[in-house]
Amino acid sequence: MQNSLDGVKAILFDTFGSVVDWRTSLIADLSAWAAGRGIVADWVRLVDAWRAAYAPSMDEVRRGERPWTKLDDLHRATLARLVAQFGIAGLSEADLDHINLGWHRLRPWPDSVAGLTRLKARYVIAPLSNGNVALLVNMAKAAGLPWDMVCAAELFRHYKPDPETYLGAAALLGLRPEQVMMAAAHNGDLRAARACGLKTAFFARPTEYGPHQTRDFRAEEAWDVVAEDIIDLAARMGC
Amino acid sequence: MQNSLDGVKAILFDTFGSVVDWRTSLIADLSAWAAGRGIVADWVRLVDAWRAAYAPSMDEVRRGERPWTKLDDLHRATLARLVAQFGIAGLSEADLDHINLGWHRLRPWPDSVAGLTRLKARYVIAPLSNGNVALLVNMAKAAGLPWDMVCAAELFRHYKPDPETYLGAAALLGLRPEQVMMAAAHNGDLRAARACGLKTAFFARPTEYGPHQTRDFRAEEAWDVVAEDIIDLAARMGC
Repeated sequence: MQNSLDGVKAILFDTFGSVVDWRTSLIADLSAWAAGRGIVADWVRLVDAWRAAYAPSMDEVRRGERPWTKLDDLHRATLARLVAQFGIAGLSEADLDHINLGWHRLRPWPDSVAGLTRLKARYVIAPLSNGNVALLVNMAKAAGLPWDMVCAAELFRHYKPDPETYLGAAALLGLRPEQVMMAAAHNGDLRAARACGLKTAFFARPTEYGPHQTRDFRAEEAWDVVAEDIIDLAARMGC
Repeated sequence: MQNSLDGVKAILFDTFGSVVDWRTSLIADLSAWAAGRGIVADWVRLVDAWRAAYAPSMDEVRRGERPWTKLDDLHRATLARLVAQFGIAGLSEADLDHINLGWHRLRPWPDSVAGLTRLKARYVIAPLSNGNVALLVNMAKAAGLPWDMVCAAELFRHYKPDPETYLGAAALLGLRPEQVMMAAAHNGDLRAARACGLKTAFFARPTEYGPHQTRDFRAEEAWDVVAEDIIDLAARMGC
C-alpha cells in the first residue's frame, strides 16, 4: 500500500456495476418470473433500455428540471413507459412493482462479498450509490454485502456525480475528503470523487453492459489504486 | 409472536442505554486513560453530569433556540464546560477530543450482539439514535453491532422524540410506520414512536444510570412486546 493511502479510514463503493451485476441479475430475475406466469417479452432488450434511461432520468433531477425523486420512483416511471413501448400486455400494477423491485434483488459479482468482508476488518465500508436507502439495504441483505453504513444519494438529495454526494458522505462519516476512498468500475465516478479530494480505486467490470459495453475497460487516469477486483483491492489496501 | 406483528419488517433500536452501557463504558474508558497519564479527576461524577446535560442540550435544538448541531458537537461543548466546572487541569484540546470520542467506544450490554445477530436474519435492524452517523458507525465497528443501516437523528436534522425521526426512518426504509418496530429501554421513546404509528418493544436496563436510576424499571404501557433483553426479544419475534 502506498504511503499516501495510510490516512484512508473509509472506502465508499459505487454499487450498480461495480459491486453488483445488474444486467445479468435483472435478465435472469425477470425471465424466470415471467416464464412462471407465461408472460412473453424481450427482457434482455427491456433491461438494456431501462438502464439506458438511468442517467438521463437522474440528469433531469440534477439540472433541477424535476424535483428530488428517489431512484425507485425514477425506475418505476421508466418501466411504465418501456412496458407500453415494448407492447408487454397483461401486467398489473403489482406486477410492475415486483419488476421494479428487481433492482433490490441484484446479485454481487463473485469477488464482492469476500473482498468487502476483508476490507471491513480495517476500514469503514459503505456504498455511495444513486440507489435509495431501501433499495441498497434490501440489496445488501439479499446479497450479503456487509456494509457498515449505507450512503445513498437520497441522503443528500443529489445524484452522483454532484459533489454534494462525495463531500456529504465524508462529512457524515466525520472524515476529511482525503481520508475517504471512492472505489468504482467507472472512471467518471472517480474523476468526480478526485475533484472533491477523495482517494480513488478502480477495478474493471468489462462485462457490466454485456455486448453493449463501450467504456471503462481500463483505468483512464493514474488512480491511487488500480486493482483486478475487490479481493485484489483488499490485498492492495493491506487486508 | 402476536399476529399484529406479522407485518413488521424492520426493528429500530434506541442505542444509548438500550444497546450500549454508556455509564459503565465511559467511566472505565476515561478512568483507565486518565490513570495512564496521571490525571486525577472524579470521572464518575463527570460522566453522570455529562449525561445529565444530554437531554437539555438537544432540547435547545428541538425548540429552535440553537441551529442544528450534531451530538458529537453538543457533547464536546458540554465537556468543555464540565472540565472547567470540575477544575480538571492540564487537558489539551486533543485530550478533550479523545475524551469526547469515548461515546464512539461504548460497550454493548452482554445480550446485545447475540440478540441483534439473531434478529438480523429476519428483520432489517438499525439504530434510531440521537447519536450522529460517525458516532454510531464507529460504535458499531468497535462493539460488533451488526446493523443493516444507521438511522441517526443527524439524517433528519431532528432529535428524538420529534416525529420526524420515527417517520423519517420508516420512509428511508421504504416502509409504512406499522411495518417498523421501535425497541428501547425507555418508555418515553416508545410513547413517541407509538404516536407515529410504529410498533413497540420494551426491555428494561435497570442499571443504566447506576445508583441514580429513577425510572424505566418496567414497562409503563401495554407495549406490543415486553422482553427481558434483546435475546428474549429475538425469541419473541420468531428468531
